[in-house]
Amino acid sequence: MPRSVRMSSNRPSTLPATESDNEKVSIIFGLKRSQLKVRFCTNESQKSREDLVGMLRRLGFDISEGEVTAPAPATCLILKERGLRPHLLIHDGVRSEFDQIDTSNPNCVVIADAGEGFSYQNMNKAFQVLMELENPVLLSLGKGRYYKETSGLMLDVGPYMKALEYACGIEAEVVGKPSPEFFKSALREMGLEAHQAIMIGDDIVGDVSGAQRCGMRALQVRTGKFRTGLIFRGGWGQALCTPILANSGLIGLAEAVTGAWQDPGDMSEMFLVLFRPASAKREKKGLTFFGTCQ
Amino acid sequence: MPRSVRMSSNRPSTLPATESDNEKVSIIFGLKRSQLKVRFCTNESQKSREDLVGMLRRLGFDISEGEVTAPAPATCLILKERGLRPHLLIHDGVRSEFDQIDTSNPNCVVIADAGEGFSYQNMNKAFQVLMELENPVLLSLGKGRYYKETSGLMLDVGPYMKALEYACGIEAEVVGKPSPEFFKSALREMGLEAHQAIMIGDDIVGDVSGAQRCGMRALQVRTGKFRTGLIFRGGWGQALCTPILANSGLIGLAEAVTGAWQDPGDMSEMFLVLFRPASAKREKKGLTFFGTCQ
Repeated sequence: MPRSVRMSSNRPSTLPATESDNEKVSIIFGLKRSQLKVRFCTNESQKSREDLVGMLRRLGFDISEGEVTAPAPATCLILKERGLRPHLLIHDGVRSEFDQIDTSNPNCVVIADAGEGFSYQNMNKAFQVLMELENPVLLSLGKGRYYKETSGLMLDVGPYMKALEYACGIEAEVVGKPSPEFFKSALREMGLEAHQAIMIGDDIVGDVSGAQRCGMRALQVRTGKFRTGLIFRGGWGQALCTPILANSGLIGLAEAVTGAWQDPGDMSEMFLVLFRPASAKREKKGLTFFGTCQ
Repeated sequence: MPRSVRMSSNRPSTLPATESDNEKVSIIFGLKRSQLKVRFCTNESQKSREDLVGMLRRLGFDISEGEVTAPAPATCLILKERGLRPHLLIHDGVRSEFDQIDTSNPNCVVIADAGEGFSYQNMNKAFQVLMELENPVLLSLGKGRYYKETSGLMLDVGPYMKALEYACGIEAEVVGKPSPEFFKSALREMGLEAHQAIMIGDDIVGDVSGAQRCGMRALQVRTGKFRTGLIFRGGWGQALCTPILANSGLIGLAEAVTGAWQDPGDMSEMFLVLFRPASAKREKKGLTFFGTCQ
């Protein structure tokens, strides 16, 4: 029996179908008990890993900092390697990740999902820093277009990255999904090859297309910020298999994962998991639905 | 003697070289006394034409509303023709131009240089309106990258237009320079053909490249937001002749205009003038230096 189907048997039958967070908690629990390796691959750039993991643990998820691949620590590595001192246009929630970074006399700009911090004044300051540099360097923590909050769709860092690119006539370096380098670092951390892993996510660009360009299989779920029209409008990418239908629950996910592999004997060794709890106030990027209802 | 050289003889010799606004006032005066037709072609979208002309007249410039080609009234014509009801992301200073426009139940977004109005909240609202539409329409009053204020370079509407384009996966319709339609409307208003006119401006994209794509000659001045590096970095366009040197004054401009014509007998019938007074608090787009020092 394929391992992913075995997973579904771990779903506690007592959980009501509408308690999607509880359902997800049980799925993570099931994944960890199975022989499948799990890693959480996030573009979250408003929170430090510590805060992100803390929030998820309070919701009941079995997750530790060491299981998370996130853009802020990856960016810090790049800054140190290249002797870059950033001007930071970031959310206060993630600032602690940059505590060890020299930000004096900036020679680059780091942009992340700053939310309300994307004021005209702050954007203009970042722009002016770049324009003062002979060789402007702009590092962007992800390039997501938007995400979903309880109040509706919200602009992510990508549009603001594009704004600075256009204003300065430069191209940003993206740290995070969909950058192949970011997926490869997650694979390295797990000691796996691309063909051994499958990416599950709701974003056709950041999750599905990004993972596929890296040589991984990918599966798109019809939840979170999934919107049918966007599959076709931009031509950014395609899911390898039919997205899971809403209300299909864990069994639906398991079947879709099975179907994503041409050869059932070549089953996944790892799930790279986008993980989005429904009960969190911010339904932020880097969080997934496992075929649960919404 | 070429007409443009004749112009220079109108420069009052009593004006000190540093009083660039007075110098420009005299140039407009001289242009109007000459046989050259003058039109002011602006992407100003923070002020109504009435306010813009009022400010310039107080600075001594001989200019009337009827001599100005501006994007706000051009946009209103488009909205009426196509039955569009805009959500307006604009500066309060230009709102009066849209007094006659129905903004109920929006079926498009109009974006202009909103300055401080480009808050995260306002950008997100415009984004949400677009995402609710089956066929999102985004009209942008210009697509300038930045302009110069006394406090430094400032982001213009273009970067924010790009942000919404990327977020929604759409392409904006630009009303204003460098749209060839905008230059053509200015030419129509003067009853001239493109080959009879020369564009003078400091923006290699909005002014020079835009006019050239429309079939006009163009001349870039080395003042205002001119920056050498940007000519080469983006590959957006080229000036037809060597930019006027700083401190070259009116005579330098006249010589450059003369040199811009391959056949001296085919002299300009019109100057489309970018007009930027140095003493205005906002050194806003749509204002030119005539080879004066800065």
